Amino acid sequence: MQKKTKIALSYTVLLLLISTLLGCSGDKTPISESTATDSAQEPLFPRGEKGPASNFTGNAYNTALLPNDSTYHTLVGNVYFEKGARSNWHVHPAGQILIVIDGEGYHQMEGEPRQLMKKGDVVKCPPNVKHWHGASEKGSLTQMYILPNTEKGIVTWLEPVTDEQYTSMNN
Amino acid sequence: MQKKTKIALSYTVLLLLISTLLGCSGDKTPISESTATDSAQEPLFPRGEKGPASNFTGNAYNTALLPNDSTYHTLVGNVYFEKGARSNWHVHPAGQILIVIDGEGYHQMEGEPRQLMKKGDVVKCPPNVKHWHGASEKGSLTQMYILPNTEKGIVTWLEPVTDEQYTSMNN
Repeated sequence: MQKKTKIALSYTVLLLLISTLLGCSGDKTPISESTATDSAQEPLFPRGEKGPASNFTGNAYNTALLPNDSTYHTLVGNVYFEKGARSNWHVHPAGQILIVIDGEGYHQMEGEPRQLMKKGDVVKCPPNVKHWHGASEKGSLTQMYILPNTEKGIVTWLEPVTDEQYTSMNN
Repeated sequence: MQKKTKIALSYTVLLLLISTLLGCSGDKTPISESTATDSAQEPLFPRGEKGPASNFTGNAYNTALLPNDSTYHTLVGNVYFEKGARSNWHVHPAGQILIVIDGEGYHQMEGEPRQLMKKGDVVKCPPNVKHWHGASEKGSLTQMYILPNTEKGIVTWLEPVTDEQYTSMNN
């Protein structure tokens, strides 16, 4: 083999190496796609204010969406529960409607098994029924709540949900 | 150059070619990332049933989330408005709360300018105020609605929003 052929082959190897590096690193960072994904994954509501440890186990954050007033007699908000976080047991005199915005979690009415709830689910918690709700053990839960007919009252907070109650499928 | 060296170089070129093809095609289809993106972009609620042409201009689809009953006296649903679609003018005897889930659109109360509303916004439409809402001219709108105190009535449908009214910023 002549020296010229040897140099040509070396260049081929070098060019292939460069194209490998450029080509692959380009595919690893598709900037426009990343941006689109980030935008779609932006939370619907701000994270909100941390709920007090007296009413929640773990970290739960509340965003008020509609404050209670004498026109609508309705209170609307959103709670972001971190993995494993949940409300205490509590009672709403006029009931509560939950709408799961993202993730999955549980709700339980006293005397019934806990129920899985996930993105898009709508859950009715009847008036004066002792219940709790929160994230699953696996991930966070974003959950809107609607409290109707607030002239009848809003909430009575009760004792925490123990780890045994939280992890039991039938308590 | 000896024959052995020549063969070794050819193999190097071949291996680099294969690694380029394998490496890059692998990066172009990151299966787990695509799945995550698809999941995040899944609509929160199903598209629902097409609203009647007698109450809507363009295509609007309604999903009932909480049917009206005598326990909660509340009706909750979601409307997906295609680009340019909007409700007729209408009145709710007990008012209405709108929560924008995705996209952007407008709402307008009679005698006031139309207002832009976008993802995460909460809008109060007071009782007995004639109003309309719908998508923008640029894209679709996904919008939850809450009708409280339904014992006072649900809705009275009125005339369509004309193109002039829809496009005017101050009518």
